[in-house]
Amino acid sequence: MALSRRDFLTRVGQAGGYSAAFLSMQGLGLMPAKAEAPIALNAAPGSGKGTKVVILGGGIAGLVAAYEMRELGYEVTVLEARARPGGRNWTVRTGDKIKFTDGTEQTCAWDAGHYQNFGPARLPSIHRTILGYCKKLGVQLEVEVNTSRSSFLQNDAANGGAPVIQRQAINDTRGHVSELLLKCMNAGALDAEMTKEDRERMLAFLRMYGSLDNAGKYAGGDRAGYKVEPGAGDQVGIPSTPIDMHTLLDENFWQGVLFEETFDMQATMFQPVGGMDRIPFAFAKSLGDIVQYNAPVTEIRKTSRGVRVGYTVGGAAKTIEGDYCICALPLTMLRKIPNDFAAPYKKVIEECSYAAAYKVAWESRRFWEQDYNIYGGLEFVMNGCSPIWFPSANMHTERGVVVSGYTDESTSPFGKLSIPEKFAESRKSIERLHPGHGKELEKPMYVGWGKIPWNEGSWIRSYDAKPTQPRPDGSTSARGINSPGYETLIQPDGPIYFTGCHVSHIVAWQEGAALSSLRAVKMISEKVKLAKLASQAGSAVAV
Amino acid sequence: MALSRRDFLTRVGQAGGYSAAFLSMQGLGLMPAKAEAPIALNAAPGSGKGTKVVILGGGIAGLVAAYEMRELGYEVTVLEARARPGGRNWTVRTGDKIKFTDGTEQTCAWDAGHYQNFGPARLPSIHRTILGYCKKLGVQLEVEVNTSRSSFLQNDAANGGAPVIQRQAINDTRGHVSELLLKCMNAGALDAEMTKEDRERMLAFLRMYGSLDNAGKYAGGDRAGYKVEPGAGDQVGIPSTPIDMHTLLDENFWQGVLFEETFDMQATMFQPVGGMDRIPFAFAKSLGDIVQYNAPVTEIRKTSRGVRVGYTVGGAAKTIEGDYCICALPLTMLRKIPNDFAAPYKKVIEECSYAAAYKVAWESRRFWEQDYNIYGGLEFVMNGCSPIWFPSANMHTERGVVVSGYTDESTSPFGKLSIPEKFAESRKSIERLHPGHGKELEKPMYVGWGKIPWNEGSWIRSYDAKPTQPRPDGSTSARGINSPGYETLIQPDGPIYFTGCHVSHIVAWQEGAALSSLRAVKMISEKVKLAKLASQAGSAVAV
Repeated sequence: MALSRRDFLTRVGQAGGYSAAFLSMQGLGLMPAKAEAPIALNAAPGSGKGTKVVILGGGIAGLVAAYEMRELGYEVTVLEARARPGGRNWTVRTGDKIKFTDGTEQTCAWDAGHYQNFGPARLPSIHRTILGYCKKLGVQLEVEVNTSRSSFLQNDAANGGAPVIQRQAINDTRGHVSELLLKCMNAGALDAEMTKEDRERMLAFLRMYGSLDNAGKYAGGDRAGYKVEPGAGDQVGIPSTPIDMHTLLDENFWQGVLFEETFDMQATMFQPVGGMDRIPFAFAKSLGDIVQYNAPVTEIRKTSRGVRVGYTVGGAAKTIEGDYCICALPLTMLRKIPNDFAAPYKKVIEECSYAAAYKVAWESRRFWEQDYNIYGGLEFVMNGCSPIWFPSANMHTERGVVVSGYTDESTSPFGKLSIPEKFAESRKSIERLHPGHGKELEKPMYVGWGKIPWNEGSWIRSYDAKPTQPRPDGSTSARGINSPGYETLIQPDGPIYFTGCHVSHIVAWQEGAALSSLRAVKMISEKVKLAKLASQAGSAVAV
Repeated sequence: MALSRRDFLTRVGQAGGYSAAFLSMQGLGLMPAKAEAPIALNAAPGSGKGTKVVILGGGIAGLVAAYEMRELGYEVTVLEARARPGGRNWTVRTGDKIKFTDGTEQTCAWDAGHYQNFGPARLPSIHRTILGYCKKLGVQLEVEVNTSRSSFLQNDAANGGAPVIQRQAINDTRGHVSELLLKCMNAGALDAEMTKEDRERMLAFLRMYGSLDNAGKYAGGDRAGYKVEPGAGDQVGIPSTPIDMHTLLDENFWQGVLFEETFDMQATMFQPVGGMDRIPFAFAKSLGDIVQYNAPVTEIRKTSRGVRVGYTVGGAAKTIEGDYCICALPLTMLRKIPNDFAAPYKKVIEECSYAAAYKVAWESRRFWEQDYNIYGGLEFVMNGCSPIWFPSANMHTERGVVVSGYTDESTSPFGKLSIPEKFAESRKSIERLHPGHGKELEKPMYVGWGKIPWNEGSWIRSYDAKPTQPRPDGSTSARGINSPGYETLIQPDGPIYFTGCHVSHIVAWQEGAALSSLRAVKMISEKVKLAKLASQAGSAVAV
């Protein structure tokens, strides 16, 4: 799969007649993915021999680091506080317990075969690193349906509180926008802007784009769905009456209309068959006793050689020394661990803030499939728990697990509710969208990541006491941009390298965690290589 | 699953506070699907006892009719010309032969496990009837990925012939349209049309909808993808430079941009695991010797009792009599069979015309997945074979079967080419979109439905010598609207009931075939019921 940039350009040249096209593609950012592996380690097999690395945390970042360093010959130990690998990559099944820091406990009693990924639950196809590990480790994938035109949107303040089906919201919106622009153009509003030819093509385009009639009006059409579906014999389809623009302008509807266009939410998406935790368990199987479970870190010290890490196993204090440390713990946890970090690192660890995402999941008859033809995808509700997220696993079977509510509760009134009150709110959202079906929901399970031991937060929200502004589109990737705290964290603190999705611009995704560790492995490998070269030359160059 | 309309309305009433919302939903055509089974037969089990029905053709229409009538107690025989069930529902695997009416023969030599559905290849989730049979018959389904934001569009005459990635075409188009409308509105073009409040909401909406910057300009963004993707550490994402509106206005790009919004192409889509022919084979297994294979029909006659059908088995002439006949043969075949049809039926059978859809499929390394992150979905090329259709089966494995070219060749120059020339054209499309990969394509297979015995056409194009106009959006469902031929065909010709997707407004879909047969079964059942009532009453009412 790996192909050097030079090989690639040669190949393009050989294809003949396409070089120009490809130069143009490059300009458009269309370069095929193979041209650049996300991070090439450029390290020789065995180059890590004799170098000891202590990895803190057995989440995806820690596991990726351990996997790659073991491959390079490093002597690696992963210290993991829990009895399982994966960190936030956590799949709950029958018999599993959800324990909070406040002592609250829930036990899952869903039917065998049912599960919920309470942490990450989707793999975008653009996340090549984590998909690559799935392939390498034999983790079987299936499509995660992230959008369904048959699912609903709902807002108490719009459309009399009645749900709107997404196929209609999306296509009526496009129709109205096209009609309005066509009207403006016909009135000459763009005569000064565009050539006559472009205007004519634009008008033709808008008719097609918006499914406008010959008069340039949007009057519904097959894209937005039917009041009466086309059928056999004399059953002619009657398109739905368009929703008026005034209703569609309600801001909640925008979220649903545009959700699927977010870069990392776009089709095609995947999930491991059987649960997201198949990924960490596959890493763990490969790593064997490199991962020490039930081994919480108690202190992190710098030494003349590298690092010394204190931890416990079964209450007994232990220490481990290493040349390097990859620190893949959440910053919320690092706050509590005595350490020798330099002042700027202590500052970001102290000042950063984390989101507290939650999910509520229920077991239920698949009324969404059986009664509404909704297979997978999400629904959005303005007031109360949102989104509703239908399972892509085991579609067409009788029962399944549905999410009602998945957002950050740290800043919302929902965070203040008791668990029974949260369940009532979550049920209410389903009832709003699918009246009569709230009562079909059973055996709710709630995970609030703010209260989960060894995490106490879902993902980083800001690196600094005074948070940087998120981008207008709310994309998570910009979280670290212009942030002094982020700039600190991405540099090693002596022998200590911080990794995790918070050391990437892909926060809250496994891809970010994996890439951050690949980057750290690369940086350490380069140091080790330089040190060896220096010692081979017998010189005294400091590394 | 079945719930009467009355039950449903009662349940809605009980939900409390939502009646108003639901009345509103009804107005919007949002009634949940369960409220109406597509066609309720309203016939008692056993009501068909003593009535003999001859069904012509073992495609989906014939199989559905046989399945339902057997359930009702009718004495049913299906005459099928081929050695297999399914008709156009045909999956080709290694060792299978493709024979044309002109004597040409191809033998499939793909690796074991590879297949191509040369007829129908997707099941929209809105097609409840055929999905219902999959459930009833235990046909396992998986998601068919009908759209991927990572796939390409290409037009020699636009963008210097360079492919455009769909995520960019779709989102840049929305961005440009939003920017233009915002500009018109800021110039006052809609001041007379909208209230100030709506204008303000509209401007805010357009910023979000088009991902416009604070100045109201579209300058790309995460939806359209990145030149440099956000990564770990200091790798900040750099959004792609937008494609200019002039380029996007090219009509070929529209097709790709809007394809996924066609009603019956919208997510969520399915396919049977292992091949579409799992459906007819599941029907056939259930029906057992009700289906007579290798039994082509040679004549169709009306009798005083009902019908007499001539057919052959192994060259030996046979006849079968029945009270009713369900004729689910393509009209192209009926033309050749001596019959007693009334004049208007003979007319439509004679005057109708059929499309000749083709598919070319190749075995290849999955370069689209491995090198381009394209998993499933379609690509569109303006000149030459189009679309490219990537497999949803066995994604993430090494090799697969990809379609390059799937359209009607009856009216295109492609139809005139020899098979080797067709293969060359098909390969060329892949090369246009993915330079260097044309040579990875192996073992091509071509099915042209116009030359397939027992079909000689893919689906009906028009019912009349003077075809009716298709709707502006090109949707197939309107094909029979305002067509005298269609109006004839949907009425029984005495004891003979025509079925098939051509007797529905869902032409070229299995759903149309199934619904047309359900409708015929219902009509026959009602006749039989009336006849029994009349005979029980000892009256002489003619039925």
